[in-house]
Amino acid sequence: MTVTLTIDCMGGDHGPSVTVPAAVSFVRLHPDARLMLVGIETAIRAQLKKLKALDNPALSIVPATEVVEMDDPVEVALRKKKDSSMRVALNRVKDGEAQACVSAGNTGALMAVSRYVLKTLPGIERPAIASAMPTPTGYTTVLDLGANVDCEPQHLLQFAEMGHALVAALEGKERPSIGLLNIGEEVIKGNDTIKRAGELLRASTLNFFGNVEGNDIYKGTVDVIVCDGFVGNVALKTSEGLAQMLSNALREEFSRSWLTKLMALAAMRVLKRFGKRFDHRRYNGAALLGLKSVVIKSHGSADAYAFEWAIKRGYDAVKNGVLERLAHAMDENSGSLERAADASASGHSGDPLPGGIPPGTASSPKA
Amino acid sequence: MTVTLTIDCMGGDHGPSVTVPAAVSFVRLHPDARLMLVGIETAIRAQLKKLKALDNPALSIVPATEVVEMDDPVEVALRKKKDSSMRVALNRVKDGEAQACVSAGNTGALMAVSRYVLKTLPGIERPAIASAMPTPTGYTTVLDLGANVDCEPQHLLQFAEMGHALVAALEGKERPSIGLLNIGEEVIKGNDTIKRAGELLRASTLNFFGNVEGNDIYKGTVDVIVCDGFVGNVALKTSEGLAQMLSNALREEFSRSWLTKLMALAAMRVLKRFGKRFDHRRYNGAALLGLKSVVIKSHGSADAYAFEWAIKRGYDAVKNGVLERLAHAMDENSGSLERAADASASGHSGDPLPGGIPPGTASSPKA
Repeated sequence: MTVTLTIDCMGGDHGPSVTVPAAVSFVRLHPDARLMLVGIETAIRAQLKKLKALDNPALSIVPATEVVEMDDPVEVALRKKKDSSMRVALNRVKDGEAQACVSAGNTGALMAVSRYVLKTLPGIERPAIASAMPTPTGYTTVLDLGANVDCEPQHLLQFAEMGHALVAALEGKERPSIGLLNIGEEVIKGNDTIKRAGELLRASTLNFFGNVEGNDIYKGTVDVIVCDGFVGNVALKTSEGLAQMLSNALREEFSRSWLTKLMALAAMRVLKRFGKRFDHRRYNGAALLGLKSVVIKSHGSADAYAFEWAIKRGYDAVKNGVLERLAHAMDENSGSLERAADASASGHSGDPLPGGIPPGTASSPKA
Repeated sequence: MTVTLTIDCMGGDHGPSVTVPAAVSFVRLHPDARLMLVGIETAIRAQLKKLKALDNPALSIVPATEVVEMDDPVEVALRKKKDSSMRVALNRVKDGEAQACVSAGNTGALMAVSRYVLKTLPGIERPAIASAMPTPTGYTTVLDLGANVDCEPQHLLQFAEMGHALVAALEGKERPSIGLLNIGEEVIKGNDTIKRAGELLRASTLNFFGNVEGNDIYKGTVDVIVCDGFVGNVALKTSEGLAQMLSNALREEFSRSWLTKLMALAAMRVLKRFGKRFDHRRYNGAALLGLKSVVIKSHGSADAYAFEWAIKRGYDAVKNGVLERLAHAMDENSGSLERAADASASGHSGDPLPGGIPPGTASSPKA
């Protein structure tokens, strides 16, 4: 099966000088991939020429005359720039010419234009942003990372369904484990939304592990962690800040004097290996989930290596049927809200209900 | 001025074997400190004897027959164990025999018993947990770290006042800068609570910097960052998890073979220096703020070195008048809610109010 993706070549801090080399490298490694390069034709052509890829049959150019800038307000992207590379790339997906879109454009604009052009899947109220975060042995997929603040319990259930589908597709795990991000047991355990989301998840057919805490992200306790976008964004940005500080400090300590520089030289092999293991570029490519097609958002500052990873995530998601899996998970759990209500009515009450149902019978639908 | 603290010697994972050595070391370095060691008398006495500190006049033993265990529910600590070392240590503070209490006991119990025994300051609805997180050049104080989920805007203002007072006292900065934790600009900027908290902070006399993001914690952008306890706890735990994973991985890479072990040996000096710079033990000692006295919560797993840092934070807070500063900040800002309402009524409306106040005049009370 051929996988066709549109690439918004103008998005990100570097535009075609990053996106086009990444695309060329990607199709050379993946013979069944077709990439439609969307953007200012002359700019894309110049890059292709430089890379001797003008006549690569796996690449085609789709002209677009406008560019959504990184600081453009959502309204501009949505209402003014109707021939932007971002919009055209999404239109081609909507028209069925490609199965997914990859863009390094600004998150707010990409989410808004994607929603407008592609629409959300039936039953999904809010798309979410999912990304992989490294663990000692692999990674944890966390969502939502910032698309939704103020989530209701049913949104967290939907995020869990989306995360389930994404990880099932990308990692071939049939029943990825799902954790609900919460705070330390010592303190009052979570707010009302979290408690009710927990009930919904327990009543679902998903492989729900239970509550997890912030440190579980990096322990790899579960495959998927769900949280509202505010909390997820803070966790992501906090991690980026800490990693950056530590890496700067390590570099600083090693370049303090000629002696420490010698030490760095001596330890180079280990330091490189360590650096490679947690190279954030390998985790580039967040998935906007809940739309009628897959959209992958690359970091704006991505280099060609990082952007190629984002293309790979889009390709893998399509190839492994993430949307079909999501539809299936949602179908299976369409009764979760009702089941949770039942469980809550019967399982949490000390006495049997008037109808004579003993407490607890409805609280474990998986059994 | 003499500073007297009560030490809950039985709290934490290790009890007197950690708390007593820390106390002995502390008074040897701080001649004006008096520590009341609260707990099982024989256990404390045995430790003191071992350290040849039985007759140190700066140390006294206050017997308590019960211990709040790390997994005791809040209700047990509060209603059953009335002669616990934690409760007795707080009682002595309430009675004015000491000015602050330091405990490594479980957070939920310590917060609940502290609230019950000491009461909150007038005007403070909810105490908060504040802790220091390292930056390249110092640290950022973040609160709340888990005492309060579901905060209202006025609680975030109170946290800012508490953080202001704590940092002013501990670091001698008269007007520490305050940031409000929010999410990326690209996305919808924060929820309603955050937006309204921003208005309150802008209308206050505090040195309000504006919104900050998760990575600003480790950049040192501001002196104090305020957030609700759910978000703060996730940021803290996520950081702990990431730091742990990276440090394990670095150790792992360096112990992979005899060659890498040699490299580690060569780089030892730098690695040690790096490790020391971010040694989390130096940041031990979270302040429970908003109570009528200062309470310092140490990590349960603290060793003697870390616990001594917690004692130091309590000592510094008392010595530098954190409570007096807090009272002053609250007094100055008692009109913030009204001012913010004014600012919002006049500044956010496109037209002048009927009274003729032009928009914006009330929105910058600091000018």
